[in-house]
Amino acid sequence: MSIRDDVKKMKMAAPYLAASSIDIRNKALEIAMSKLKESAEKIFEANRQDLEAAATNGVAPAVVKRLRFDEHKLNDVIEGIKMLIKLPDPIGKVSLHRELDEGLELTRVSCPIGVIGVIFEARPDALVQISTLCIKSGNCAILKGGKETTFSNRILFEIIHNSIIEAGLPVDCMLQAESHSEIDELLSCHGYVDLLIPRGSNAFVKYIMDNTSIPVMGHADGICHIYVDDEADFELATKIIIDAKTQYTAACNAVETLLVNRKVAGEYLPKLYETMKNNGIKLRGDKEVQSIIAIEDLTEGGYIEYLDLVASVKIVDDIDEAIEHINRFGSHHTDSIITENKKNADYFMQMVDSAGVYCNCSTRFADGFRYGFGAEVGISTGKIHARGPVGLEGLVTYKYKLYGTGQIVGDYAEGRSHFNFRDIEY
Amino acid sequence: MSIRDDVKKMKMAAPYLAASSIDIRNKALEIAMSKLKESAEKIFEANRQDLEAAATNGVAPAVVKRLRFDEHKLNDVIEGIKMLIKLPDPIGKVSLHRELDEGLELTRVSCPIGVIGVIFEARPDALVQISTLCIKSGNCAILKGGKETTFSNRILFEIIHNSIIEAGLPVDCMLQAESHSEIDELLSCHGYVDLLIPRGSNAFVKYIMDNTSIPVMGHADGICHIYVDDEADFELATKIIIDAKTQYTAACNAVETLLVNRKVAGEYLPKLYETMKNNGIKLRGDKEVQSIIAIEDLTEGGYIEYLDLVASVKIVDDIDEAIEHINRFGSHHTDSIITENKKNADYFMQMVDSAGVYCNCSTRFADGFRYGFGAEVGISTGKIHARGPVGLEGLVTYKYKLYGTGQIVGDYAEGRSHFNFRDIEY
Repeated sequence: MSIRDDVKKMKMAAPYLAASSIDIRNKALEIAMSKLKESAEKIFEANRQDLEAAATNGVAPAVVKRLRFDEHKLNDVIEGIKMLIKLPDPIGKVSLHRELDEGLELTRVSCPIGVIGVIFEARPDALVQISTLCIKSGNCAILKGGKETTFSNRILFEIIHNSIIEAGLPVDCMLQAESHSEIDELLSCHGYVDLLIPRGSNAFVKYIMDNTSIPVMGHADGICHIYVDDEADFELATKIIIDAKTQYTAACNAVETLLVNRKVAGEYLPKLYETMKNNGIKLRGDKEVQSIIAIEDLTEGGYIEYLDLVASVKIVDDIDEAIEHINRFGSHHTDSIITENKKNADYFMQMVDSAGVYCNCSTRFADGFRYGFGAEVGISTGKIHARGPVGLEGLVTYKYKLYGTGQIVGDYAEGRSHFNFRDIEY
Repeated sequence: MSIRDDVKKMKMAAPYLAASSIDIRNKALEIAMSKLKESAEKIFEANRQDLEAAATNGVAPAVVKRLRFDEHKLNDVIEGIKMLIKLPDPIGKVSLHRELDEGLELTRVSCPIGVIGVIFEARPDALVQISTLCIKSGNCAILKGGKETTFSNRILFEIIHNSIIEAGLPVDCMLQAESHSEIDELLSCHGYVDLLIPRGSNAFVKYIMDNTSIPVMGHADGICHIYVDDEADFELATKIIIDAKTQYTAACNAVETLLVNRKVAGEYLPKLYETMKNNGIKLRGDKEVQSIIAIEDLTEGGYIEYLDLVASVKIVDDIDEAIEHINRFGSHHTDSIITENKKNADYFMQMVDSAGVYCNCSTRFADGFRYGFGAEVGISTGKIHARGPVGLEGLVTYKYKLYGTGQIVGDYAEGRSHFNFRDIEY
């Protein structure tokens, strides 16, 4: 059977999941939590199989680190589910209640998006986070994890799938895709899949975006900037830059380009250079920067995403040039200004067109957990629907409900009836 | 100069428009209002040129009706602008304010989407409505109207463009596209255009959706249903069906398929058939329906969008079959149940996966003006971002602002600092 058939069945199951009570959805999460605890040894054993395969196949150490699922990671995901259970129901929330005329009442109510396909990297904890976020928000989930985590994902999926069935939710509302070829089939399921959330490399996300007519949420590149203003506290700037570059080099919210105000470039750049060198970070820049510090030329491609201990540096005339550079060459992800001048901070945060605009802190804070959302299904740099880290709120849409008593539009168009818009408290 | 160059300039102007005060945006609307009044004669003269050209070119009467712009239409658009001025500022609204830790404060603030391209049908009032909605919501607008309204659009655009300049808004934040060839160029402006809103025929909207990687908001087809429950008031049902079919036959929210519960089909269908015939409406159905009333077979393609005085009829076993049919064959636009049973109504409205789910009223109510939004840029059947009629709220997104005092993620990851999520009232 092809995945398309499964997805069609899922589409039919979606309204039933959407109509389920929060008690049942929370119950499914509670069952999942205890099943995960009970099955700890089986999960670790499956994970050992993945780790052995990784060793055999010579998988990169960074990937191995992510695919390891131990007691610590298990506790983390269980804590995450506990937090999720406590969060209020994101569906059924009224955001507008209006009497249009006597006996004609409009309500706008939040509801699940429907069927969501998430394609994620080789991290078993991601499977748990994404699937539980989907359960809580009443969305059917098609889960495709990295092939390096095949054994771990298989058991984790089975545990969570069994939990939703035990709680009384439809069997068809969770689905695991295991083979890479199923991705292309999934991309063609327009009309059945409501949203795709691809996570992973730039090229992979671009491939998804270019090869489907299903809406895609996420981000391709993450070129984040830190602008050091002429009124910056240098020590604070350097501390933040080191964190934003080194705390997790391969993350999309790591800083890639440093912009330094010309007024302080002569004084600050040599200091920055020294500390960067001591922290193993290489800088690259144009001739102007090179006239102050002895660094390499920019890579071909200019101000790119390195995902490595490398950052571009550029001198800018003023805050406006910094803003212009960010809006033009950035990826609208997360950008930070370092300044002691509140007015400059506010101006920067107003004018920079990114999902996250920061002042005096590390770009690495762009994350669902750090925003207090419990978890995230991804980070969106799009402006349509959710932007920034996407938690429960980004997984819902709304519908308009209109209760009438026989009203027809002709009466209003021809002046026999009149609208009498009156908002009702909710 | 190509439109791409203009769009690039627009992208640069967008942050300035986004940062403009509501006073300036409202002032632009006020100036537009008085300029439109002053220029009434010039506008009507331009419109006469369009009407003459339409007569020469043998344009269809339905199109001619829409392109006529007289005193009545002018008053309507002026009333619309007046209403728009009174509406609160959709940008700068805080929807989350949270202390993550001492001195680390997160705010989520609404902001304009940026650069929006709207391609609309030959209706001069549409140009005014769309451009003023964009001004109010701080969005740059690229406007491409139907070629039949060239003269009218040219003067209307000039008036509104001059108004924003006079109010002090950036010159580059409004742009008119006149030639059809510019549409394809626009579709390739990914990275500069944030959103496309195409209005018009099914085929045209599909063409846009299939030929751009820019997000598209809108709808292709509008196959709306009315389900006549076994507990329906028949007179009320018939009155609503006539309105939904005839009040504006070519509209996307006109009803196309009637579903009738089997329990009442024998009694209701002959009555419906009589009244439909008297109102010039043809019905089409399968053999089962034909065994009760003498109607034609379904058109090839089945339950399609007629946009004419024709509707499909189908007998369903029960409310569940009605829901299944709508979710499977509908376009997720607007669907109505006719019933005196509140439980059935609620169940239908929960289970039908459409932007509008109605009870005992006409599908034709799906409209921004009738929802009390003042106006709409279009109706969306997508689930990502705005759904249903799209007014000001659908034209904004949000950004996260994070003010820190030197915080780095390393401190939290390694347990030296702890998040202390605390929502702040706003």
